[in-house]
Amino acid sequence: MSDKETGDPHLHRLVLFSDAVFAIAITLLAIEIHPPEHWSGISELFYLMRFKLQAFAVSFAVIGIYWMTHRRVFARLKAANGVLDVLNFMVLGLVSLTPLCAELLWERGSLDVVIVYVGLVSAIGAAMGAVWGYAAFIGKLALPFRTGEALFLLVRLAVSPGLFCGLTMVTLVKPAIGAPLLALALIGLSLLGRWVGRSPAPTAAA
Amino acid sequence: MSDKETGDPHLHRLVLFSDAVFAIAITLLAIEIHPPEHWSGISELFYLMRFKLQAFAVSFAVIGIYWMTHRRVFARLKAANGVLDVLNFMVLGLVSLTPLCAELLWERGSLDVVIVYVGLVSAIGAAMGAVWGYAAFIGKLALPFRTGEALFLLVRLAVSPGLFCGLTMVTLVKPAIGAPLLALALIGLSLLGRWVGRSPAPTAAA
Amino acid sequence: MSDKETGDPHLHRLVLFSDAVFAIAITLLAIEIHPPEHWSGISELFYLMRFKLQAFAVSFAVIGIYWMTHRRVFARLKAANGVLDVLNFMVLGLVSLTPLCAELLWERGSLDVVIVYVGLVSAIGAAMGAVWGYAAFIGKLALPFRTGEALFLLVRLAVSPGLFCGLTMVTLVKPAIGAPLLALALIGLSLLGRWVGRSPAPTAAA
Amino acid sequence: MSDKETGDPHLHRLVLFSDAVFAIAITLLAIEIHPPEHWSGISELFYLMRFKLQAFAVSFAVIGIYWMTHRRVFARLKAANGVLDVLNFMVLGLVSLTPLCAELLWERGSLDVVIVYVGLVSAIGAAMGAVWGYAAFIGKLALPFRTGEALFLLVRLAVSPGLFCGLTMVTLVKPAIGAPLLALALIGLSLLGRWVGRSPAPTAAA
Repeated sequence: MSDKETGDPHLHRLVLFSDAVFAIAITLLAIEIHPPEHWSGISELFYLMRFKLQAFAVSFAVIGIYWMTHRRVFARLKAANGVLDVLNFMVLGLVSLTPLCAELLWERGSLDVVIVYVGLVSAIGAAMGAVWGYAAFIGKLALPFRTGEALFLLVRLAVSPGLFCGLTMVTLVKPAIGAPLLALALIGLSLLGRWVGRSPAPTAAA
Repeated sequence: MSDKETGDPHLHRLVLFSDAVFAIAITLLAIEIHPPEHWSGISELFYLMRFKLQAFAVSFAVIGIYWMTHRRVFARLKAANGVLDVLNFMVLGLVSLTPLCAELLWERGSLDVVIVYVGLVSAIGAAMGAVWGYAAFIGKLALPFRTGEALFLLVRLAVSPGLFCGLTMVTLVKPAIGAPLLALALIGLSLLGRWVGRSPAPTAAA
Repeated sequence: MSDKETGDPHLHRLVLFSDAVFAIAITLLAIEIHPPEHWSGISELFYLMRFKLQAFAVSFAVIGIYWMTHRRVFARLKAANGVLDVLNFMVLGLVSLTPLCAELLWERGSLDVVIVYVGLVSAIGAAMGAVWGYAAFIGKLALPFRTGEALFLLVRLAVSPGLFCGLTMVTLVKPAIGAPLLALALIGLSLLGRWVGRSPAPTAAA
Repeated sequence: MSDKETGDPHLHRLVLFSDAVFAIAITLLAIEIHPPEHWSGISELFYLMRFKLQAFAVSFAVIGIYWMTHRRVFARLKAANGVLDVLNFMVLGLVSLTPLCAELLWERGSLDVVIVYVGLVSAIGAAMGAVWGYAAFIGKLALPFRTGEALFLLVRLAVSPGLFCGLTMVTLVKPAIGAPLLALALIGLSLLGRWVGRSPAPTAAA
C-alpha cells in the first residue's frame, strides 16, 4: 500500500498535480456566480439564482465523480511515464473547461447547450478511459490485475459517464423514453459487472 | 501517528484534495473585492470598503474555523471510502459557496442576507457532522474512541457553528437578547463537554 | 530531518494548506491584469501596461519572499497547535489581500496607496513575527534553538519587511533621504546578525 | 528514489508549491473564457469561440509541457537552497503570466502578439535553463550526472521551447520557410542528443 505512494515520485507528483487542478476547477465553479442586482426576500433570491445553483450543483457532482474515478484509477497504478502525463493532461484540460460549460448551462438551458455539456462529460470519460487503457494494457504501469476486470473498468470509464449523463438529461425532458432506458443501462452494467466476476468495488480498488 | 498519514492512500488523497479546496475558497474571498473608483485619503478608502472588508474578515474566519474542524475530524480517521468522499464533497461544495455569500453580505447587509449566511454556516456544520457521524458510527473509519466523546463531538460539529453564528448576529442587532443567550450556550456547551468526561481538546485530537 | 515532515501530521497539514494559499495568492496577482483595449506595437503595449506589470512584479516578489520566510520559520518547528493555526491564518489572510493592494497600486500610484501597501507588507511581517514568537517562546513548538538567535529572527521577521519596503518606497521618491537610511538599516541588521553569533542563514535554517 | 522525496524537506516543499502554481495557472486559462452573448446552433458557438479555444489549447499545452519539464529537472535534484527558490520563482512568475498572454492571443492574433507570446515561452525556457544550470553546475544541488548530458539538457531547456514555439508559428504563416527549418531543428536536436551519448529520455529522468 505504502509503496504505491512513495514508490514512484513521478506518479506521486502527477497525482498531487491532478488533485490541485480538480480542486481549483471545482472551486472556480462558484466564482462566476454573482447575486442578482435586484431582489426582495429569500425566496425571490433563490428563484432568480435557480439556474445558476442547478448548474453549479450538476457540475460540482460531475467534477466530484470524476475526481473519485481518477483516484480509483490511479490507486491501481504503480508508476507513471511521459505518455501518461499527456493523457492525464487531456483529462485535466477537459475538466478545466467545466466551469465554462456550467456558465453556458445557466445562461441558456437549450438542447444545444445540453448536447455540448453531455459532450464534455463524455469526452472526460473517454480521456479517463484512455488513461486506464494505456496504463493497463500498453504502458504496463498498473499493479497486477485480472484482464476481464480491467477491460470492464475500461468500458465503464470510457462509456458510462456520457451514457448516464445523456440518459439523465433525456429523462428530464422525456421521462417516458428516458426512464426505462436509464433503468436498462443500470441493470445491464450491474449484470455485466457481476458476470465479469468480482465487481471492482470502490473499497477493493482503494 | 505516522500510520494515520501513510496508512491509507485514499484518506491521504482525500485530505490533500480537501485542503486545496479550502485554500482556494479562502483565497478567492478577496478576489471579488475591488477598490472603489473614487476616493481621497486612506480613511475614505477604508470607509468605502468597510462592508467588503468586514464580509471578508467574517468569511475568512468561517472558512478558517471549518478548516481547523476538518483537520481535527480527519485526524481521528484511519481510512476513507466512497461514502465519506461523497459526504466530504457536501462540505466542500458548501464551503465553495462562501465567497458568493460574502458578496451577498457586503452588497446588502439586510436580515434576509444574514439568514442566508447563517443558513450556509449551519449547513456546513451539519455536513461536517454527517462526515464524522458516518465515519465514527456507520462506516467504522475512525481510530478507537469513547462513545460519549464521539457523540459530543458530533453534536458540537453539527449544531454549534450555526447556533453561535446565529446568536452572534442576533447579539449584533439586539444585544439585550443575544448576549445572555450566547453566554448561556457557551456555558452549556462547556459544562456538557466537562460532563462527558475528558474534553476533546485540539491538542488531544491532533 | 525526516521526522520534521512526518512527526506531526497537524504541522504537515498546516504547511501544505499554507503553501496552497501562498500559491493561489501569487498566481491570482496576474488574473486581474487585462490587456489594454487599444494599442499598436509591442512598445505601446508594454507602455500602457507598465503600471500593472510593475505592481505585479513587486507583489510577486513580496509574496515570494514571504513564502521563503514562511518555509524557513516552519522548518524550525516540530509541532503545531490551535493557536499556531490562528496566528498562521492571520498571515494567510493578509497575504490573500495582496492582489487587492496590487490593484490599488497600479490604478493609482499616490502616496496614500504606497502607505496602504507598505502597511500591508508590515502587517504580514508582524503576523509572521507573531507566529515565530508564539511557536518559539510560548507554545514550545520549535526544535531546539539558541535564545539570542531566536530573538534576532523574531525582530527580523516582525520589523524588517515593513522597514525595508517603506525605505525602498522612500528611496524611489526621495533618493537623497531614502538611500542612506536604507544602507544604514542594511548595515545595522547585518552587524546585529553577526553580533548575535551565528547568522541564521537560509541554508542553516533549511 | 525515496530519499529524493523525503531527503530534503526544503526541496519537497518547493516542488509542492511549484505544482500548485502550475495547476492554478493552467486552470485559470479557462476562467476568462466566457460564452458569446448571441449564438444559434453548436457550430456557430464553436465558430465564435474558435480563437478562445485555440488560445486555450495552445497555452494549456505550453504550461503542460513546462510542468513535465519542471518535474524532470527537479527529479534530478537532491536539495534546494535560497537561490534555487528565487530562480524557480522566476519560472513561476512567467508561468502565471501565461493566462494574460492567452487573452492577448485570442483578442488579436497579430504578429505583435505572436512575438510577445513566443517571447514569454522563450523566457520560461530560459528561466528553466537557469534553474537547472544553477542547480547542476553552481549550487551542487543535483544528483550525480554526466557533464555532457547535463549540458545538453541545459541547452535543450533554455533554447528549444522558444525555438520550436517560434518555428511552429512561422510554419503556420509561411509553411514553405517554417516547415524545413522546423524539421532541421528537430533532426539537429535529435542527432545532438544521440551524439551526447545516452539520450536523457523521460523514463530515465523519472
